[in-house]
Amino acid sequence: MPATTNRQWVLAKRPSAQISADDLRWVESAVAEPAEGEFLVRNLYLSCDPTQRKWVGGNTYLPAVRVGDVVRSIAVGEVALSRDPRFRPGQLVQGLFGWQDYAVVRSDFGSAVTLVPPDVSIETAMSILGFTGLTAYFGLLEVGRPRQGETVVVSSAAGATGSAVGQIAKILGCRVVGIAGGTAKCRYLLDELQFDAAIDYKSENVITRLREACPDQIDVYFDNVGGRILEAALLHLALRGRVVLCGGIATYNDPQAPGLRSYLNLIAQRGRMEGFVVLDYLPRAKEAIEVLSGWLREGKLKNRVDVMHGLENAPVALDRLFAGKNVGKQLLHIADHDGN
Amino acid sequence: MPATTNRQWVLAKRPSAQISADDLRWVESAVAEPAEGEFLVRNLYLSCDPTQRKWVGGNTYLPAVRVGDVVRSIAVGEVALSRDPRFRPGQLVQGLFGWQDYAVVRSDFGSAVTLVPPDVSIETAMSILGFTGLTAYFGLLEVGRPRQGETVVVSSAAGATGSAVGQIAKILGCRVVGIAGGTAKCRYLLDELQFDAAIDYKSENVITRLREACPDQIDVYFDNVGGRILEAALLHLALRGRVVLCGGIATYNDPQAPGLRSYLNLIAQRGRMEGFVVLDYLPRAKEAIEVLSGWLREGKLKNRVDVMHGLENAPVALDRLFAGKNVGKQLLHIADHDGN
Repeated sequence: MPATTNRQWVLAKRPSAQISADDLRWVESAVAEPAEGEFLVRNLYLSCDPTQRKWVGGNTYLPAVRVGDVVRSIAVGEVALSRDPRFRPGQLVQGLFGWQDYAVVRSDFGSAVTLVPPDVSIETAMSILGFTGLTAYFGLLEVGRPRQGETVVVSSAAGATGSAVGQIAKILGCRVVGIAGGTAKCRYLLDELQFDAAIDYKSENVITRLREACPDQIDVYFDNVGGRILEAALLHLALRGRVVLCGGIATYNDPQAPGLRSYLNLIAQRGRMEGFVVLDYLPRAKEAIEVLSGWLREGKLKNRVDVMHGLENAPVALDRLFAGKNVGKQLLHIADHDGN
Repeated sequence: MPATTNRQWVLAKRPSAQISADDLRWVESAVAEPAEGEFLVRNLYLSCDPTQRKWVGGNTYLPAVRVGDVVRSIAVGEVALSRDPRFRPGQLVQGLFGWQDYAVVRSDFGSAVTLVPPDVSIETAMSILGFTGLTAYFGLLEVGRPRQGETVVVSSAAGATGSAVGQIAKILGCRVVGIAGGTAKCRYLLDELQFDAAIDYKSENVITRLREACPDQIDVYFDNVGGRILEAALLHLALRGRVVLCGGIATYNDPQAPGLRSYLNLIAQRGRMEGFVVLDYLPRAKEAIEVLSGWLREGKLKNRVDVMHGLENAPVALDRLFAGKNVGKQLLHIADHDGN
């Protein structure tokens, strides 16, 4: 039986820059009852993703979180009560359950609730075999389309998506250069993930270092940050180079971020810059998960998670992404499985 | 027999902004003799193209014009003397013959010298059936890939490339919106070229007007200008919209032009922004010229040229593009055919 209190982080107003305490409200209320066709989920883990900053900022590829609503978040939880015959109490499910202990869910068309496979840990299901892995897999393969021997550069390379992108590119036989902040992350890319080169954007000149690390220029740049690093990569794009726009964390908190000037290099280089949203590829998730699972089993792909604890820390955990504190997938553990 | 003096505009130094008199030098010298395998061309018409500003500014998709060299330009001329058995005196040829009366040409692989078809006027061969028409045709069809019923927006819409793009899109069954500077140009787009809407960027708010003129948003934006108009179009891009980067005339003279901020909308809209260079499509020129010639004959495509006279006016003629003074293809007539 569920507890009777639901703790929630609710959006109090739209943030103007970084999400601050003023933008959120902590609310405690009775757990809602699922109606016919609905089920109740008890959240166990929350996923921390840069895109959450966009969701509370305004309409994007999803409608904006409304002021007064629970902050939107991918989560894994346990079905606690069910009035939907397709879901049974005790099942582990993943979906957009939000920053709260309990969510009442109606699994309509488009709600993207998936079952966590029984042979996979929750942490793996929320990282390399979840949206993060799918983002890396489809963004790199379908939008970037790297060929063996090409040079692939990825930013936020020690982050969840970036580290998967770089490793997949290595498996495909590419030269891989990662851009990350700080010596420790760069060492991780070189020593543990076997990248060919790593650039520390905090202490190195990215334009100069890209030139050194990519003697044949950049065939695929997988961009997680936008801003000046995207600017630098565009300047060094190879002929018919491709830029995969996955996210722009460097700009999400800064409405005054300077614009991109080097886009005209796309003309001279016959380059392509293309955005994508992983949700479009969910119908093909099975294919990606099979391939990624195989690489994990063979030890070709390493997965790292960075776990904080406690629902009260949700804003702090999310902020770690923007401060570049996480290595691997940032998760927030808020309750134990079977721990009613 | 050729005259003995060759008049030339030579690059004196790299321009920092707009090309000014200080950046060029007027030189008169003896006409050079073609060596074995070369031929001498007497220029009749020069083509004025925004990309010339890039060619003198630095390396782009072609090596920069060197200081001391003749300013690079597409031209049509008459073969005056030939020591290349493939070219006969009197033939009309098109190539990169430069701002000068006479050019010594070696038609090596890659020099892109073409014969002007006998049944086509020089002015037509230099506009809708020349690089301009090929740019519009391949850029729109191969990069933009519009489908019937889609909305196509084009900037510099009363210019040579833009007016061809818009008309081709109309022929394909698209809704076409042109952006141009001034009432007269907008009237030309609506009344003569039958565009569905025209936006005067000098007197109207482009963002607001794009919203009004494109109720289903923009499926293809063919960009000739860059800068704030590209910014506005990106903000109004439809799902899976495509941006064809053809040129950035708004930025060529201004190294401090503000950067592009709305590129992140490519993520939410799954948009693609891609550059191209018409030279890549020259092997397929025949296909395009056949189609364009057919449309011309059927009256579906209108061609307009804007002709100035006199080699001494080359800088003035080029500047008309940047001042937005031309309607249709800007040419400079410098000598008459058969007028030795």
